[in-house]
Amino acid sequence: MYHLKLVGIGTGNHKHLTLKAIDALNSVDAILIPTKGAGKDDLAGLRHEICTQILTTQPKIADFALPIRDESTRDYGQKVNDWHDAIADIWLNTMQATLPQGGTVGFLVWGDPSLYDSTLRIADRLTKTTEVTVEVIPGITSIQTLTAGHAIPLNEINGPVTITTGRQIRDNGFPAGSDTAVVMLDGACSFQHLDPTGIHIYWTAYAGMENEIRRSGPLAEVQADIIDTRAAARAAHGWCMDIYLLRRTAE
Amino acid sequence: MYHLKLVGIGTGNHKHLTLKAIDALNSVDAILIPTKGAGKDDLAGLRHEICTQILTTQPKIADFALPIRDESTRDYGQKVNDWHDAIADIWLNTMQATLPQGGTVGFLVWGDPSLYDSTLRIADRLTKTTEVTVEVIPGITSIQTLTAGHAIPLNEINGPVTITTGRQIRDNGFPAGSDTAVVMLDGACSFQHLDPTGIHIYWTAYAGMENEIRRSGPLAEVQADIIDTRAAARAAHGWCMDIYLLRRTAE
Ligand SMILES: C[S@@+](CC[C@H](N)C(=O)[O-])C[C@H]1O[C@@H](n2cnc3c(N)ncnc32)[C@H](O)[C@@H]1O
Ligand SMILES: C[S@@+](CC[C@H](N)C(=O)[O-])C[C@H]1O[C@@H](n2cnc3c(N)ncnc32)[C@H](O)[C@@H]1O
Repeated sequence: MYHLKLVGIGTGNHKHLTLKAIDALNSVDAILIPTKGAGKDDLAGLRHEICTQILTTQPKIADFALPIRDESTRDYGQKVNDWHDAIADIWLNTMQATLPQGGTVGFLVWGDPSLYDSTLRIADRLTKTTEVTVEVIPGITSIQTLTAGHAIPLNEINGPVTITTGRQIRDNGFPAGSDTAVVMLDGACSFQHLDPTGIHIYWTAYAGMENEIRRSGPLAEVQADIIDTRAAARAAHGWCMDIYLLRRTAE
Repeated sequence: MYHLKLVGIGTGNHKHLTLKAIDALNSVDAILIPTKGAGKDDLAGLRHEICTQILTTQPKIADFALPIRDESTRDYGQKVNDWHDAIADIWLNTMQATLPQGGTVGFLVWGDPSLYDSTLRIADRLTKTTEVTVEVIPGITSIQTLTAGHAIPLNEINGPVTITTGRQIRDNGFPAGSDTAVVMLDGACSFQHLDPTGIHIYWTAYAGMENEIRRSGPLAEVQADIIDTRAAARAAHGWCMDIYLLRRTAE
């Protein structure tokens, strides 16, 4: 009935789209674009802009409002689950309203669909109840935009790398077993909770966008500047997405 | 004197190139393409093919032979270091022969330049001895091609992920602290060294290429098939690049 194409679009620079992503978006019957109920970021605007820039065909474009999470649900896992269920319902309603006969539906997924993103989990719900198939088109992640901007390798020679979250860093410290940690989903500069000795940081906000900001250096020396820079940027823009790499150095 | 553009090209599917990568390759004065001394893989051929497909300008294309690693050097780190030094020398010679007046030089880097790749480390050597600047253009990695092919998330909800190598898995087992491990640089199906109980594997060979092969399932059930499939593919093609994700499941 519906074939979903979850298309990675990179993190805000339409030049990061792949040829495959552009082909995919030009091949669908409709594109669904989420608008955030209480959203201060302008990601819906960016998605519309990308459509304008790369579409040579005329898929229907359907905006839908994301539901609000029920904050009265105590259990975090349950809350997220309920929220994903609610989004899946809205997807299906929007698809049925936009393409009553079925068809191919595109979603512009921030960065890559595999990385800290719920689109795939929501799509999976639909495959269980409805005749829905799912295809994923990879995109440039904020991790690669981070390392490209600083012109650094992700890993040390043949060394492991852990990708993790601000919360994990706060709760569990520097990841065991890796000398490199990439930290995402951190609204709180969680690097402050680490002993900075011997740690180098590469930090980027608004990676890939026009207003990209980068800082790097020994964590002890640059962390205060990063905290200030982030706060100022957030105040100026209303939102700030940032990502950083922490490396334990030999010296 | 020389400005180097290290351009991520994805892992064998030219549709995975980004608009930015295509712009970058069309903006350079020369492109350097390594040919492997004793190479059985056809990556040089693929790089030439990509140039044919996406170049609308006429940069000079210069092939150069990669040096052979000196296997008599006992220390692994030293051996790799010496080898990178030798490659940096060859780059410089090739650039000087191709563009005696200096200019912009492009390199087509497999996947993304940050991930288990030596191009950035070699470029860094040149910046220390010569007037060379370096720019990195991100590319789709084999990790994203793996997860897209299987249509799976990389991480569990807000969970950490460790990217590691076959050797690490053999020496240290399943990475501590993460329930998801992505294993690269493994010629030896190193998952065999793990207790398979409760581990799910998603395996892909030739990710993104026409002959992509995928297998997935509980490790205990599918590992024999993966080992056989890999051996047969390797015998047929002369080489096999593969990557896999291991997930410790709750059940
Ligand atoms: C919900 S996750 C989505 C990640 C996305 N799927 C990707 O591939 O990068 C959002 C987190 O990704 C990181 N991120 C995404 N876009 C970013 C950007 N343009 N600049 C900096 N960090 C970004 C931040 O750490 C943010 O908290
Ligand atoms: C030297 S590393 C280069 C990785 C590359 N820079 C990237 O971004 O994927 C080579 C390893 O990457 C993985 N790899 C690269 N291309 C692949 C492909 N097409 N299919 C499967 N694995 C691949 C394999 O694990 C291989 O051993």
